[in-house]
Amino acid sequence: MNGAQSLIRTLVACGVDVCFTNPGTSEMHFVAALDDVPQMRAVLGLFEGVATGAADGFGRMTGRPAATLLHLGPGLANGVANLHNARRAHSPVVNVVGDHATYHQPYDAPLQSDIASLARPVSCWYRSAASGRRLPEDVAEAVAAAASPPGGVATLVVPADVSWSEAAAPAGPRRVPAPAPVPAATVEQVATVLGHGGAGDAVVLVGGPAMNEKGLVAAARVAQATGSRLLAETFPAVVERGAGIPPVERLAYLAELVELQLHGARHLVLAGTTSPVSFFAYPGKPSDLVPQGCEVHVLAGVDEDVVGALDALAEALGAGGAPVARPRLERPPLPSGSLDAQSAAAVIGALLPEGAVVSDEANTAGIFIPGATAGTPPHRWMTLTGGAIGQGLPVATGAAVACPDRKVLCLEADGSAMYTLQALWTQAREGLDVTTVVYANGSYAVLAMELGRVGATPGGRRARHVLELAPPPLDFVALARGMGVPAWRATTAEEFAGHLGRALAEVGPALVEAVVPPAF
Amino acid sequence: MNGAQSLIRTLVACGVDVCFTNPGTSEMHFVAALDDVPQMRAVLGLFEGVATGAADGFGRMTGRPAATLLHLGPGLANGVANLHNARRAHSPVVNVVGDHATYHQPYDAPLQSDIASLARPVSCWYRSAASGRRLPEDVAEAVAAAASPPGGVATLVVPADVSWSEAAAPAGPRRVPAPAPVPAATVEQVATVLGHGGAGDAVVLVGGPAMNEKGLVAAARVAQATGSRLLAETFPAVVERGAGIPPVERLAYLAELVELQLHGARHLVLAGTTSPVSFFAYPGKPSDLVPQGCEVHVLAGVDEDVVGALDALAEALGAGGAPVARPRLERPPLPSGSLDAQSAAAVIGALLPEGAVVSDEANTAGIFIPGATAGTPPHRWMTLTGGAIGQGLPVATGAAVACPDRKVLCLEADGSAMYTLQALWTQAREGLDVTTVVYANGSYAVLAMELGRVGATPGGRRARHVLELAPPPLDFVALARGMGVPAWRATTAEEFAGHLGRALAEVGPALVEAVVPPAF
Repeated sequence: MNGAQSLIRTLVACGVDVCFTNPGTSEMHFVAALDDVPQMRAVLGLFEGVATGAADGFGRMTGRPAATLLHLGPGLANGVANLHNARRAHSPVVNVVGDHATYHQPYDAPLQSDIASLARPVSCWYRSAASGRRLPEDVAEAVAAAASPPGGVATLVVPADVSWSEAAAPAGPRRVPAPAPVPAATVEQVATVLGHGGAGDAVVLVGGPAMNEKGLVAAARVAQATGSRLLAETFPAVVERGAGIPPVERLAYLAELVELQLHGARHLVLAGTTSPVSFFAYPGKPSDLVPQGCEVHVLAGVDEDVVGALDALAEALGAGGAPVARPRLERPPLPSGSLDAQSAAAVIGALLPEGAVVSDEANTAGIFIPGATAGTPPHRWMTLTGGAIGQGLPVATGAAVACPDRKVLCLEADGSAMYTLQALWTQAREGLDVTTVVYANGSYAVLAMELGRVGATPGGRRARHVLELAPPPLDFVALARGMGVPAWRATTAEEFAGHLGRALAEVGPALVEAVVPPAF
Repeated sequence: MNGAQSLIRTLVACGVDVCFTNPGTSEMHFVAALDDVPQMRAVLGLFEGVATGAADGFGRMTGRPAATLLHLGPGLANGVANLHNARRAHSPVVNVVGDHATYHQPYDAPLQSDIASLARPVSCWYRSAASGRRLPEDVAEAVAAAASPPGGVATLVVPADVSWSEAAAPAGPRRVPAPAPVPAATVEQVATVLGHGGAGDAVVLVGGPAMNEKGLVAAARVAQATGSRLLAETFPAVVERGAGIPPVERLAYLAELVELQLHGARHLVLAGTTSPVSFFAYPGKPSDLVPQGCEVHVLAGVDEDVVGALDALAEALGAGGAPVARPRLERPPLPSGSLDAQSAAAVIGALLPEGAVVSDEANTAGIFIPGATAGTPPHRWMTLTGGAIGQGLPVATGAAVACPDRKVLCLEADGSAMYTLQALWTQAREGLDVTTVVYANGSYAVLAMELGRVGATPGGRRARHVLELAPPPLDFVALARGMGVPAWRATTAEEFAGHLGRALAEVGPALVEAVVPPAF
């Protein structure tokens, strides 16, 4: 058995049975070995950013890692931006990168580069496999490292000669530790703080593992029992939300709004997230968004048993069994007339299917969607965790592979869509059930807003031109059809409802271009 | 004057007046400053790989750097693959990367990452600007570092607060050293080796700066005077070729063929390139392609005055003024019938305009093109220097910005085209005179070949599936039109000639999809 065969068998033995790939010559033994191990599903992406983003989406949905298979340093580099997002999402990913044969590396062949330097910024674990004898152990350790709380990108570099040489038998799974329980004393301390505070002077800020129904119910009980405000981190990896699930307002992207959300807080309790900071720096504005005089208390870090800690806290506050407010099923009516961010959001709210998975990279065009979908049937919502645009379509692709029985709805800004549009082809090839909405406002609208916020001069003609996506206008209908995905354009609310309704009713990939005016 | 304004003014003062960009919030002051400095042309790419590849193409054509402007670590990462190619091409590039404000970096905001670790593998020079006071000097040094022989990627990281704070006045250009002259003793030594050898037992291998007409004439004289074989490196940045220019055969991509090309050589003289090594490692095959018993002599490194050294060598061998063979103007006739790699090459040979710039990433579909174009009017040819696919369209884009009076012909493989197809939009926006041919063979054909070469099992159904680009078939006509580029599909030689002829006759971007069978 050669290294590649033992690698794939070990992955499968460790529960990794999907590989998102764009391989090259140094990875051909891995590709050849796919025929020996039918349990491994290989999904081709036409660009590495699709593969890494899909692995992120798969990890978010299943809580277990998919593998990637990338080609040397440049192939890895193409996938780094979405690995950055995966790192911020704490998604488990086994990032397999092929390399030149060990003895070939000193020759500085054209594709030689410093893979370690490129990988380390996004990796929680890094190793270059030294031999076929050790390879199965390396693979099992990589899987365990990726899956260990809080989850991360484990990069395993596999030189070509390690792939093609005789290898040890496949290894079995390593033990993956459960999230560490939070000490009772910590829970007691936080309970004391919240129990003694005045109503409204404390904020419970949740994130990460707390963003499922169980965590949100516990957090809502804590907030209800103590009169605290309940808020969530700005960009969680996945949130469970909709009718019947305690709602949680997310911290705003704009620091000015976070200031209002946290105004007057004297205690900030963190559960599964970190202390809020400004997304960017702005002249004269603080980076740290914790109000002056507010004390920060860590109930549970993202690698700990956050939901258990929230449950224990609710218990300690005597709120364990209290019922919490849960929103009723309530959809906005289908709007008519002009199509803009608001009417488009109402259409989404009217039509979002139960159990849907939403990949949200709508950016400025999406500001009304959370409100319009708050009362729709329960669903899961993924956000842009690391700020590296081009995440939405790939993450939707991986989520669809992970959840073949759910409808995936990808909400995309036009500028972000153009980063990794190749994901549409993978959706078509694999017959994935993803409906994509591209908000075509013809501009990097968020930057038009930021141009003012950073205190730059208002922006003359030449500056604005750099932020505009037209002329020429992008035709997303043509682009999608060019990759085998049926597509339609909507310019009114009625058209949007018609096209989106049809796309959601059928199984398989589809795209609707929603022509909307820019918000800024 | 703020840092961004002084930065741009310094760039312009140092001769850098084009910036290929995809900016974000941390770069907004740079964008705003574009209105203050009309001498700086900003060219927007919809993905960073377009911007970095375009800067490479601009550098190859002009010999002077363009700037990039990229957004933090993820934006840089998206551009790294084409910076890798630029590094291998020794292209001068001033790679400007925005960063969070210095005081904001410790807060680990979502977009925070280790920019230095991502940049170093592709950079010949790296600095993060510490203050507005020092910034103009940093910029001038970066330009000089990029332009110093042999040329490279100088990465200057500009934190947002350095951009927006008061800065020193713009700096003037630093002195850029000329390529170092090769010592007379070295020339003499090589002359002795070549002068005393038997005909045919020496190979003169040229590359880098020797690949223009002057260098090739000198090299041809040397070869002619000594009976040596003249060969060129496999993937030069730019070659001047065509009727009237001494032709030079390039070392093959396949090590097996290089073995034949170098067979029997006892002396290998290097001028502007390095000793040949195998592109990839293969089981049981050597990495070093220098034949056993062959002595390697370095006439001139890529950072030295290679053409001067070749001239001096020709002089020392008494071949200074001898006329060399120059190919006559000779085009293949327009073929008819089926369209395949061979007939498509003949069409290119029949129609290639004088003075054209060719960006060649046709890969397996392009094997007959060099032969078919050898006698066409003089033109320049750029190759995939670093092996990171997705170079062709961006490099063509930058070359067109650099050479508005030349027709740029981009020869693209379908798999490679899908990496950075967004370049078409930039070509449309800027009205660039680029004709793109996409060879649609529906497969990663080079990998289908490599699957066998690496000694992997023949490749079963599942392995082959990973190397196929259909189903669904990619429709490049739709994809191009979706980005504002007129496009046509050709399935016969006549159709290809018709569409290509029309595209070449008009000014502005166009694309022809040439449907060809895969070579492997």
